[in-house]
Amino acid sequence: MTAYSPRDFKALTYFDATPRFADGADTPRAYLERCLETIAAREPVVQAWVVRNDAGARAAADESTARWKAGRPLSPIDGLPIGIKDLLETKDMPTQMGCEAYRGNFPKRDNAAVWALRQAGAVVLGKTVTTELGGTHPGPTTNPFDPRHTPGGSSSGSAAAVAARMVPAAIGTQVLGSIIRPAAYCGNVALKPTQGGINRGERQATSQSTHGVHAGSIEDMWQVAIEIARRAGGDRGWPGLMGPDAPPVAARPERLIVMETAGWAGLDPATRAAFETVLERLRAQGVTLLRRGDHPWIEAFERAIADATALCRDITGWENRWGTRNLLDQFPDGLSARARAALAAAEAMTPADYQARLQQREEAQRRHAALAPLADAMISLACPGPAPVWAGDPPGAPPAPWPTGNVVFNAPSSMLFAPVVTVPLMAVGGLPVGVQVMGQMHADARATAIARWLLQTVAPVEA
Amino acid sequence: MTAYSPRDFKALTYFDATPRFADGADTPRAYLERCLETIAAREPVVQAWVVRNDAGARAAADESTARWKAGRPLSPIDGLPIGIKDLLETKDMPTQMGCEAYRGNFPKRDNAAVWALRQAGAVVLGKTVTTELGGTHPGPTTNPFDPRHTPGGSSSGSAAAVAARMVPAAIGTQVLGSIIRPAAYCGNVALKPTQGGINRGERQATSQSTHGVHAGSIEDMWQVAIEIARRAGGDRGWPGLMGPDAPPVAARPERLIVMETAGWAGLDPATRAAFETVLERLRAQGVTLLRRGDHPWIEAFERAIADATALCRDITGWENRWGTRNLLDQFPDGLSARARAALAAAEAMTPADYQARLQQREEAQRRHAALAPLADAMISLACPGPAPVWAGDPPGAPPAPWPTGNVVFNAPSSMLFAPVVTVPLMAVGGLPVGVQVMGQMHADARATAIARWLLQTVAPVEA
Repeated sequence: MTAYSPRDFKALTYFDATPRFADGADTPRAYLERCLETIAAREPVVQAWVVRNDAGARAAADESTARWKAGRPLSPIDGLPIGIKDLLETKDMPTQMGCEAYRGNFPKRDNAAVWALRQAGAVVLGKTVTTELGGTHPGPTTNPFDPRHTPGGSSSGSAAAVAARMVPAAIGTQVLGSIIRPAAYCGNVALKPTQGGINRGERQATSQSTHGVHAGSIEDMWQVAIEIARRAGGDRGWPGLMGPDAPPVAARPERLIVMETAGWAGLDPATRAAFETVLERLRAQGVTLLRRGDHPWIEAFERAIADATALCRDITGWENRWGTRNLLDQFPDGLSARARAALAAAEAMTPADYQARLQQREEAQRRHAALAPLADAMISLACPGPAPVWAGDPPGAPPAPWPTGNVVFNAPSSMLFAPVVTVPLMAVGGLPVGVQVMGQMHADARATAIARWLLQTVAPVEA
Repeated sequence: MTAYSPRDFKALTYFDATPRFADGADTPRAYLERCLETIAAREPVVQAWVVRNDAGARAAADESTARWKAGRPLSPIDGLPIGIKDLLETKDMPTQMGCEAYRGNFPKRDNAAVWALRQAGAVVLGKTVTTELGGTHPGPTTNPFDPRHTPGGSSSGSAAAVAARMVPAAIGTQVLGSIIRPAAYCGNVALKPTQGGINRGERQATSQSTHGVHAGSIEDMWQVAIEIARRAGGDRGWPGLMGPDAPPVAARPERLIVMETAGWAGLDPATRAAFETVLERLRAQGVTLLRRGDHPWIEAFERAIADATALCRDITGWENRWGTRNLLDQFPDGLSARARAALAAAEAMTPADYQARLQQREEAQRRHAALAPLADAMISLACPGPAPVWAGDPPGAPPAPWPTGNVVFNAPSSMLFAPVVTVPLMAVGGLPVGVQVMGQMHADARATAIARWLLQTVAPVEA
């Protein structure tokens, strides 16, 4: 562990390793062994994994090695070792969801995205730690750049495994902020696609939730996402992630809207100053930035998302309450106090409360859509500063509300169903802080192209 | 068994039994015992049930009896014995889905609708036969009015149990035509709500599928539906069934559009003539009927739904293919030839094929919405004539395509996400044939009110 510098940190990548697979100068099996060595060295502190299938991964990597040698890889990600958030079912490993009630749960099925990854030749290495049921109750994972700090959540293990260079990519899921926030805290790039972009398979309980990709590079991030979508499609009723078969080329935006969110007022001065420096560098590149006061529609948009965290919590709580109640009835000791409190809040809601929240969400989506002619995309912080310290709940005190960090910069894109890409453009106090690009619905490729341009063009800021 | 006559047949009802529960002149327990007597007499031939929990039902009926006596029923359906289609999970009974691969499956959870029914005091009596996974491969249930004929599917047992007066109501599900068609073949009333109207709980795999209610009366049908929706809400992202707390009063429509569908051309003369007689009686009541040639938007609508069966099959096949593949991988002998053929067809599709079908569905929905100003609702046959004879696949021959009857009159409302109510207004050859009222999205209560008016006003037709 050393302090993080976005200038110096070299993330693990796969796309640039494959050219040497054809002649055997490198192989997917050798790549995997390097990953396993890193895991052996760092896992005792990082604790990113719940369970791994090393033997199965080695067998899959050997098969991939043979395909690359024969010149017939199944896809550009054939052989890529990948971590799967432990909310998704995998036929060869248990799915325990960070939840006592699911201890030993082993349904022997592949989630649709996992199924697609195997079809593309990816090496499904193991299950990564999630907070309990993807909620707020944290797992054991630590931030790879300082173990006193949270890696973020709920995709804690996926974010940390990529940041610790254990794997070049991992699958996460986001309902409020569970892909982008941990990625931002860990210096990853990550894509939370448009709602419905990647087939969630059995995980269809909530109306705003997506599978997404953590990676060390934009190239691997996009390639993993599109290979899944090409095989498994999107959620039922959605067209699924659309875009090029190869990573979108970098695209310079002409105009970006700076999204403040309700998190703006509470920013620490160092993070705020660093972000303003990023914006300054964008202006220096000729990008026009529109801010809250520049157009009444932007102001109306900010007001429509000011309540995003509570709105997402209510909608998701209501949608999950029947399933959680079933779980608690079966396993009275199977849920944390945090999860039981969330259930109690949801069970106090009525259908009319839920309908009102849906209406509020739809109105915010319309306010977002109205901004399409004003700018190419939006830009904002992907997290409210560096990952906070997390050392467990103090005995006797009520549980901390956000042990894996605050979702205030992430709830808006979730409720808007909008695609968002985070890139590691900042460090504050020796820890990563992400900057996110949010596009209009279905403009995943455009947001990715702009994020790629940012990474290539804007010198990162250290504070 | 005698030939069915809509004039003479007296369906089993619950709403009119409850007034006698307060003073103990009748009780929910006694009501249940009468149901069990009917089941004992008729089940050997009808075969509507997969499994029942008679002991649990008796205990629940006793609790309900005490509540009614105390003047504190949980709802108007407190004590109502109800059948649950065996696709929905029930914590006290296995859920085997008419499928070899699910033999003995017992997840010990309640589907959201079942959970709500118990909260409303309903007596969950047992699981009713479904075709395999709700698809085309039939179960053992026979038509209560002639056992040589199918009861329809996939909600075969729910339809037959209500028609045989075993229970006053039962829960079905519909993706293409699985609530309305069997209800129409069995002389029930039934509601397939607007898409998302009733929380499907764990059954979220497909974009067009609803839980709905079979009943002996409009009153019980509506009350069961609204009691579920008030407690469990709708599917995630949908407002859920909206309407009055008590059954909507009958409402005479001013104008109805006659929906032909692709099934019109193939009708047998007796069914066609009987339906025309129904329409004649509507005109005699002063209802204006608009037909295909009367407005270019009606013609455009009919063209948009002409392909409904294939469209629903493709969309649903694609959405189910990952889950079915998982099932087949786990249980290579667990699926019928019909189900394997449907999987093979779905696996030949691409994401682009699916996207094209979604677009086609959305365009048809727009064509339907455009008709709102023209009429109060649509009216059509709910099935293409009386239930066909079904005696099993002939050995050596390919499987019959529609062993539980053709969905051609049902696929349109499914793809349009539109609410539809069928009422028993016709008999052809001594078997029931339903007439359905289809409303605009979320106009479930209006469609129910018009259906109720039809039942009260239009003399049934026997051919």
